[in-house]
Amino acid sequence: MDQSETRPGEVEGGMPKRSDAALTFIGTIRTLFASRAECPHGGQLDEPPCRIEVKASWQPALCGVEVGVRLEGLYWMHLARRDLLVQAPKSRPAPLGTFALRSPNRPNPIATSVVEVIALEPGSLVVQGLDCVDGTPLVDLKPARHEEA
Amino acid sequence: MDQSETRPGEVEGGMPKRSDAALTFIGTIRTLFASRAECPHGGQLDEPPCRIEVKASWQPALCGVEVGVRLEGLYWMHLARRDLLVQAPKSRPAPLGTFALRSPNRPNPIATSVVEVIALEPGSLVVQGLDCVDGTPLVDLKPARHEEA
Repeated sequence: MDQSETRPGEVEGGMPKRSDAALTFIGTIRTLFASRAECPHGGQLDEPPCRIEVKASWQPALCGVEVGVRLEGLYWMHLARRDLLVQAPKSRPAPLGTFALRSPNRPNPIATSVVEVIALEPGSLVVQGLDCVDGTPLVDLKPARHEEA
Repeated sequence: MDQSETRPGEVEGGMPKRSDAALTFIGTIRTLFASRAECPHGGQLDEPPCRIEVKASWQPALCGVEVGVRLEGLYWMHLARRDLLVQAPKSRPAPLGTFALRSPNRPNPIATSVVEVIALEPGSLVVQGLDCVDGTPLVDLKPARHEEA
C-alpha cells in the first residue's frame, strides 16, 4: 500500500517501545470506504451516512444519546503507522512534525471526529461526519465540546 | 475519594474485559491542579497556563508547532473509573449514559481538549485550555479541527 511507504523527507522514530495503557474496543464503524485511498480527507457533516455499531455490553451507555445531537467519536486507525516523527504529505510543500498534522500516522493512532446523529437503531447509531475506513474500531463516544445535553 | 464511589442511579458494567490495543504515553501534563476536586470543569482558553512535557524520543514530531496555534490534546485520565455505563453527576437532574456525558469515567478514559500554544520551550509547550490533574499522561497532540497549518 502506497500510504505505508516512507517518503523523501520523512523521519522514522522507531515503534513505540512502551505499553502504558490498554484500550478496549467498544464497537465498530461501518462506512462505504473499503480502503484508505477511498476515504475523504477530513470528515464533513455532509458525508454519506455511516453506522456506528456499539458492542452489546456497552449499549446501556447510549442512554440519553438522541437524534440531532453532535457527538465526538474517537476511533483507532488500525491501518496507520506509529513510527513516523516527521511526515511529508503530498498536499504539503514541506515535511512537518507528526504533532503539526492530523495524519492517521502517529504514535497513538486515535482519530477524533464530530458526527451528527441522524437515526437511532438497536445497538447502533446512524451518523454523518466520518471519513474512516470500513471496520475501524470505536474507542469512545461523547458529546461534542459545548454541546452537552 | 468521593469521585470514585457509585451514586444512586448509576449502573456498573464491569471493567473492560479485552485489551485490543496498547497506548504509549508520549509525555506528561503539568498543571496547578493536584487532585480531581481542584480541576475546573471543561477547559477554557482563559485557564492558567499549563505545561505539556513531551518525551525526548517524540520531540522531533513537534516540528512545525508554533506559538498561537490551537492544538487538540488527547490525554489519559488515569484516575477515572472504566466500568460505569450510567452516571449521575451532581450537576444533572437525572442519570445519563456514559456516552451522553463528557465525564472522565468511561471505558477508555481519553479526554480531548483544545489548547492554545502560548510559548515554546525545549521539549515542552506552554498552553492554555487544560483542566486535568497534574501528572496526567499525554496520548496525542494534533492541530485542532479546521486549524491545520
